[in-house]
This record gives sequence, C-alpha cells and structure tokens, in this order.
Amino acid sequence: MKRAKATEEAPNFDDAFRARLAKLFAWRRDVRRFKLDPVPSPLIEELLGLAALAPSVGNSQPWRFVSVETLAAREAVIANFSACNAAALQSYEGERAALYASLKLSGLREAPVHLAVFCDHATETGAGLGRKTMPETLDYSVVAAVHTFWLFARAKNLGVGWVSILDPKDVCRALDVPPAWKLIAYLCVGFPLEEHLDPELERHDWQARLTENAPLHRR
Amino acid sequence: MKRAKATEEAPNFDDAFRARLAKLFAWRRDVRRFKLDPVPSPLIEELLGLAALAPSVGNSQPWRFVSVETLAAREAVIANFSACNAAALQSYEGERAALYASLKLSGLREAPVHLAVFCDHATETGAGLGRKTMPETLDYSVVAAVHTFWLFARAKNLGVGWVSILDPKDVCRALDVPPAWKLIAYLCVGFPLEEHLDPELERHDWQARLTENAPLHRR
Repeated sequence: MKRAKATEEAPNFDDAFRARLAKLFAWRRDVRRFKLDPVPSPLIEELLGLAALAPSVGNSQPWRFVSVETLAAREAVIANFSACNAAALQSYEGERAALYASLKLSGLREAPVHLAVFCDHATETGAGLGRKTMPETLDYSVVAAVHTFWLFARAKNLGVGWVSILDPKDVCRALDVPPAWKLIAYLCVGFPLEEHLDPELERHDWQARLTENAPLHRR
Repeated sequence: MKRAKATEEAPNFDDAFRARLAKLFAWRRDVRRFKLDPVPSPLIEELLGLAALAPSVGNSQPWRFVSVETLAAREAVIANFSACNAAALQSYEGERAALYASLKLSGLREAPVHLAVFCDHATETGAGLGRKTMPETLDYSVVAAVHTFWLFARAKNLGVGWVSILDPKDVCRALDVPPAWKLIAYLCVGFPLEEHLDPELERHDWQARLTENAPLHRR
C-alpha cells in the first residue's frame, strides 16, 4: 500500500463505515481452528504495512516481526506451548481442570503462518520521548501494532490467534533474536475454519462477557 | 449499541470498507490540540461499549475506565505531568532539549474529557487462563481496549491523545483507585483543532516514520 501524501484531505467517515467498523470489532475473534490453505505472502506484507501505522510512544515504532518458518523453530515453539499448557492445567482442579483440558488453546499445528512479534528495547527511535516514567509504553506500542494487524486481517477474512501460553525466554532462544528484543505476542495466522460472533472461551463455557458496556467510574 | 446475536451471519467485508479502514489507521493521530467544545456523554458511553469488544487474555476484560472530572483531580494530574515533563527535559541537551521544550506533549488543559484507564490485577474474570507465563498480557488487553476506543473515536471525528509523561503511582493516588489497579493510559479526549495525516512528532521534526513497511525477519 502506498502511503498517502500529507497534503491529502482528511477523510469524512460516515455512519455506514462506522456500522461496519463496529461489526469488525464484534466479529474479530481469537482463532484457533484454521484451514490448511496457505496465506499469500503479499497479504502478510500488506498487513505489516498497516501495522506500522499503529500509534507508538515518541513515534518509536519498536515492533519487530519474525516469520517462524522452519520445522525446527516451529517444533520448539510447539514443545514450549505443550509444556506451559501442561503446567497451567496443573493449577486448576476438578471441573475447571477438566474444562481447561478440553479447550483448544492454540492453532500452532494447523496455522500456515506463525508470527512472533517483539519489542526492541534497544531502539533509539523516538529518542526516549514519553517513556521515562512509564517505560512499559514501548511494549504497549507493539500491542497496538498487533491489534492493527489483527483487525485488518479480519477485514481480509483471515484469522489471527494470539498464543500467550509460552515461556517467552524460550521463544527468544529458539528464534535467536537480539537480546534486547522482548516477546510481546506469538500469532497464528490463517484462514479460519469457522466464523463466530461469540468468543471461543464464551462458547465453551470458560468465561462469558461481563456486561454490555465497560462501567465508567468518576472522580 | 445493542450487541448482535450469536446467530447473526458473519459479515463480508469488501474492498471499499478495507480502503476506509486503511484510511482510519493512517489518519488516527495522537491529538494534543483540542477545541473546547464538550463531548456528549452518550458518545463516550458508545465508545466504551465498543472498547469492551477488544480482545483480552482468557476473556478477562480487565479494563477499568475512570472519567476525571473534578478540578482538584485534574489539577493533580496536570501538576504531575508538569513535574515529569520538566524532569524529562533535563535528560536532553543542546538542540534536542530546545526542540523538546518546544513540543506540545499534552492537551490536558484544553481537553474536555480526561479518561484514566487501568488494568485490574485482582480480577478473577477469565480464571487466569493464558497469563501464567506472560502475566503482562493482562495489561496488553487494556491496551487493545484503548486502541479500539481510539480508532472508533477517530471515526467519530473525535481526537484522542495518550499522555504517558506521568508518574503512574501519583495518578493512582490522586484518583484514589483500588490498590490492584495499574495505570495503563491517561487519555485526553475532545474534538481536534486540526486534522493531520503526519504524526505530530514527525511534523515537528522529532521523529519521522522509519520505513514504508515494518521489515519481516525470518527464522
């Protein structure tokens, strides 16, 4: 995608667009059930281009994307997930444990694309602006990039699943990334087997949505 | 906004929508120059309803929104910002310091709406799923909610500015929030004085965008 010129006129968003955008938010899912069909590389490149439009503290743009492609790297990540997931299961008891064991918590085996997303803590871009008192905003910038990627992926009928049941240090080691890179997200990407409006964890009775709206406190 | 029923058919997003969505990503700005016009409360409520559609680890929905309304609370936050910003200025030298001092880094005085956004670390919602090895994903869930709020705000022609030049502990104290709440973001919200395609920090020569696309590394 060509970046628009700064002289371009500001867009006027209308009700029809906003209604579709609200649908996009509602239908963006964490996907763990993927078709095996490959994802065209230009589509991933397009998504990365859009992800780079995310907000970042001090315009630091600290996101680093790694496509995990070799069998060895993928197997290391899958083994990491299996160990962490087995340990997590041990922390539940009774019915909760049985329910946990029945959940499908990743599509690591099926997803044609694996993206590990890092935050570069050594970046000098942005010259530290805005992150002296809240340095964690550097990591948050990467989260915004992941979320941007995720939303546009859904608009392209692609599914994204964020796997967090991983030991992040082991992922860094397996992928041999620079020591200053912190793992923020590990994404499975592919075309979804199913489309759902309700979250997977709600559909499988783990955790429903709380309320219609987030409550607003006042001070 | 009424939440759609789970039986509703999945939407089909088309090229026209995706082009508008890409424009939304491109034109979402961190706004520090606001009109003084008030923001209708129902609009804020609508935005909070959409923010609650953000992804969250284990469907934990840990976002907590506080509208900062009293003069005392706002003055405490402004004093906090002033002190942190003065300290940050001390860390730069020469031309960088002069440039830093010339930047407008918040719209705290002008913005009609202040929203402090917290992550509830004591929440039991989601029963801990997905955050044993990467507990920071709870905070990241709140970032996704903030980003959702921000995008829809822009689609409503509202501006949002994320202020991170704050001592988060002082904000928590000034707003008297529960001890388990962690400050993730402090947002200024209002109608923007100006619309720009280029980031404020690029326009004022602090930090330009790096490249057209985020580079893709391979393993």
